[in-house]
Formats: sequence, structure tokens, C-alpha cells
Amino acid sequence: MAHWTVGVDFGGTNIKCGLVSDRGRVAHSVSLSTRACAHPRAFVDGVGQAVERLARGAGVRTTQLRGIGVGAPGLIDRRRGVVHSLVNVSGWHDVPLAARLSRRLGARVAVDNDVNLVALGEWRFGAGRGARHLVCVTLGTGVGGGLVMDGELYRGASGAAGELGHMVIDARGPRCGCGRRGCFEAMVGTAAILRLGRRAMTNSPALRALVREAHGRLMPRLIGRAARAGDPAARSVWAEIGRRLGIGLANLVNVLNPERIVIGGGVSNNWSSFYPALVKTLRAEAMDVPGRAVRVVRTALGDHAGIIGAAVLVWNATEHH
Amino acid sequence: MAHWTVGVDFGGTNIKCGLVSDRGRVAHSVSLSTRACAHPRAFVDGVGQAVERLARGAGVRTTQLRGIGVGAPGLIDRRRGVVHSLVNVSGWHDVPLAARLSRRLGARVAVDNDVNLVALGEWRFGAGRGARHLVCVTLGTGVGGGLVMDGELYRGASGAAGELGHMVIDARGPRCGCGRRGCFEAMVGTAAILRLGRRAMTNSPALRALVREAHGRLMPRLIGRAARAGDPAARSVWAEIGRRLGIGLANLVNVLNPERIVIGGGVSNNWSSFYPALVKTLRAEAMDVPGRAVRVVRTALGDHAGIIGAAVLVWNATEHH
Repeated sequence: MAHWTVGVDFGGTNIKCGLVSDRGRVAHSVSLSTRACAHPRAFVDGVGQAVERLARGAGVRTTQLRGIGVGAPGLIDRRRGVVHSLVNVSGWHDVPLAARLSRRLGARVAVDNDVNLVALGEWRFGAGRGARHLVCVTLGTGVGGGLVMDGELYRGASGAAGELGHMVIDARGPRCGCGRRGCFEAMVGTAAILRLGRRAMTNSPALRALVREAHGRLMPRLIGRAARAGDPAARSVWAEIGRRLGIGLANLVNVLNPERIVIGGGVSNNWSSFYPALVKTLRAEAMDVPGRAVRVVRTALGDHAGIIGAAVLVWNATEHH
Repeated sequence: MAHWTVGVDFGGTNIKCGLVSDRGRVAHSVSLSTRACAHPRAFVDGVGQAVERLARGAGVRTTQLRGIGVGAPGLIDRRRGVVHSLVNVSGWHDVPLAARLSRRLGARVAVDNDVNLVALGEWRFGAGRGARHLVCVTLGTGVGGGLVMDGELYRGASGAAGELGHMVIDARGPRCGCGRRGCFEAMVGTAAILRLGRRAMTNSPALRALVREAHGRLMPRLIGRAARAGDPAARSVWAEIGRRLGIGLANLVNVLNPERIVIGGGVSNNWSSFYPALVKTLRAEAMDVPGRAVRVVRTALGDHAGIIGAAVLVWNATEHH
């Protein structure tokens, strides 16, 4: 039996490929530029070569891998291994990715939504271990979600479940990219953080100085750095983001009664800045019983969650068929 | 094998007990006043007698029933058959209801949350038939919910899942009974309908006349009657309620990707008045793929849904043990 699986995480900036052991450890990884491999043909070529390299490093052929799992940011037909469409990447319309990669590499290939795989990875090997009911939230430009319910990844009627970012929490709030008003994503995504940050700059010489150093470009991590240095204006940005996160998570707690919420994504690096306000709001806003049942934790696998989850997807697919 | 099950629906006004056939039909039913039977001891006595009467009518002893299922509006420990607490009914704190009723009647007793049982009844015999992923919403003074996911009632980590009424959709909206602002319940529950209705009265001689006939008491069904008679002010109340329902249901569609949403509860009798605005908003606000996958329908079992669901609960409990 093969002991290695390759997990592929198709991100907006990089495509990360990792060799995953049967115990969920990433032994080696390779990163490709998304820009260079964004087109389906280039993706299959680039990822194909990366998988060959990883297999060779482990002393096996690609045909000896347990399989290759791919997480992609979009709408996936998991059963047929087809990518219907991707968010922010053009050229992907009903691409039979599993079949193409499988032909190229002579190995089983499974494909699913990227955030589902982060949830799967964290649940099996990370901060979600042991939880039977889990909500995974990724914070960044987009706000994504994955749901584990009754010990299984929950995909819904058409594989689209978990779009937590497009839950309205402020019907008169700012317009979201999806067209609605006051979506969770429009309230706590990068754009919302930057909007609050720009306002904070007027009261914060420290933040203005950081932005100047960064060639005038305000980024969430600069607001994070200023907050950690004690800057009151920057701290209030994260307090407001934490409060909004608390409102949205309280909704999920009341509707789904999970035992754990795992938060990942780039913005979660500012954990200590937003967590106190998040927990305070959540405790105040969630109903008593489900509120007491839940613990909000930070991702444990970090950047590797998607890769590891992609490997778990392969294992699950193997068990089920 | 016994062919009859008794379902009990513990409502705010009445306690309904029904003799349910193996095909999910209610052969006979008995209604008790909640006020007279609100206390645990009075409940066990009143329901006990009602069950005896129903069994006698069917020519069997209570010990020959497949069992008795009870749906109660509150927090239930289903496994132990204990009612932790009820909404709007005092005197219920950790009452071992299943054990007491079972001792009284010599039959198996199962207890669960009332809206969960409406969901279960509609899913097995009503408007939710054939759906693998279902959201059930009850509209009234409170807004309740029940979730069927992957073909099973979903209860969450502590049996509290499905509190759809306490999902915030307008963070700056009216205060809810639970303390939060802009909960779904505060936006579309009876209190919200009456608030809009009172405003509508100033522009509606027709509605004012109906309220006068009702001894000055505005009720949702009067606004419904005025709307069906074509009164523009009353119609606009339901259009606004439909719009708000559409926002809340779009949230659930995006997060859970159900294939069906079943709407019940007293307020759903105004279906034709709020449905057009509901569907229009839902189509506009839900994401494409999950939006196309879902159908919003009205309860098919009406007042009997809870009774029938309570019987299904008994059957499920029997199968699992």
C-alpha cells in the first residue's frame, strides 16, 4: 500500500502542492505562481510536474501515490471531479480536472472546494480534532466557510453549502461583491478592514508612518502591527472587526449549534487583536445553551490546512468507493 | 406489532394529542387547554387521560401503542427524555417527562423540541417529502426552525440547533426578545407584523374598520384579510414581511444549500400575501447555484405536522435502539 498522498491548494497567489504522510504531516511542499498556472492546461502541466517532483523525492512513482487531492476556490462537482467555475480565475468552465490530472499522472484524483478542504484538514488533524460538529471560517479578501456536521463534511444539495461570507448581518450595511448589502464578507473581509483602517489613519500617526514605509499601501497586517504596538486607533479597528465577527458567529452558533469554530485565513494572523471583542460579543449574542457549547479557536495547521485536507479527501474517496 | 402511535404537540394555547396511523394519518385527535395543563403534574395527568381515551377509541390498551411522542417548545434532552426548560411556560426545570408519562401509560415515550418534530413530520409525510436537505421555518409570535441534513434531523452539539429566529439580519434593527438587535424573529415575527400594521392603519380605512370589529385588537390575520381584499397599505405590510423573509431565507440558502424550505406556523396562512415578495428577494439575494437548487413551499400537514412528527420520532427511536 502507498503511504504518500499529494494535496494541492489552488490559492489566489500561489498553488501549493504538498507530499502528505498517512499521519497528516506535510513532508515536502512546492509552490507555483497562480498567475503562471491559472489556465487549466497550464495548471495540469505545472501541478503535474510538481507532483512528479514530490513523488520522486519520496522515492516513488506517481502511480504509487494514494492519490492527489485538489482544493479549488469555486464551484466543484466533487463526484465527477469537474470544476464548474472559479472565483477570481477565468478560463475555468466545466473543466474535468480530475480526469485530466489523473490521465497525466496515472493516479486517483479528487477535487473539492478549497474551504471545505481546510475544514476537513483542521477537523482531522488540526484545531477541530475530536469535534463532531464544526464550523470553519477563513478570513481574507473573501470570507469562506466549511461545515462538518455529525462527523461528516456537509456539502448541501448542490455542493455549495458553507458560503458563510454571504450571510447578511446588516441589511442596511455596505454593498457586498455579490450584490447584497451587509454580508458577513462585506462586514469583516479585507475591504471592510481597510475601510475602517483608512478612517483610523486620520487619528493615528503610527499607522500613517507604517503605510508610508509600505509605499503608501494600507494592508490589514499594518493595522495589525500598529494595534499590537498599542496604537488606539488601530486597536479600535480590530475591536470593531471582532464585534462584527461575534455577531456573525453568534448567528452560526444559534442556527448550527457547533461545538467548535475554527478560524483561519490570512486575516486570522491578527488573532490577538480581534479575539477579545469577538468572544465578548459572541457570549452576549449567542443563546445560552449553544453559546456555552462552543469554543472558538485559531487554525492549527495554518497554511498547510488546505493541503492536508486535500489528502484527507483522497482517503475518504478511497474508503467510500 | 402495534399499529398506532400517539403524537402530542405542546403548544402555547393548546396541547394537541393525535392517534397516528403507521402511514402518518391522524385518525383522531384531542385538544387540551395549555393553561389548564401547563404544570408538569397537570400535563402528565391531562395527556395521560387523553392518550387513554385515544387508545380506547382505537380498541387497544395504552401498553399496545407503539409509543407516545411529545414535542415541546423548549430545550429538551432527547436521549434522557428530560425537558430542561420551556419557552413561555414556567414550572419546567429538568422534568423527566418521558419517564413520568411512560410510567403512567406503560408505553415508550420520546420527547423532542416541537419545531424539530414539525420538520420531521413534514419531511416524512408532508411538503418535505423526498428532500435530503430541508429547512423548516415556523412563523408566529416566535420564529422557529428545524433542519434535516443528509436525510437526518440535525440537532447540533447540545440539541439546540435550528434557532433560525435568532439569526441577526439587521444589526441596527429592532431589539429582539433575546436581547440582540435585528434578529429574524424581531424582523418577521408577529410583533414586527403588528408594528408595520399599526403604521399601515393610518392609511387604511379598511384595516381600521376590521380592527374596530375585532374590538380594537389588531392581529396579523386582519392585516391578511385587508390585503386579500386589495387594501394597498395592508398589502405593503406583507410585501415588507416577504422581503425580510427573503433576506433571512437567502442567508440559510447560502449557508446550508437546502433543496427545500418548508414554511409553517400560524402566520403562514397569509402565504399568498407575502410569498411573491419572498421569492423575488430570495432569487435576487441567494447565490446562483444554491438559489437554483431550492424550492420554498408551504407546510402540507398544517396543524397536524407536530403530532405526526412526534409519531415519527417514536418510530425512529424504536429503530435505533
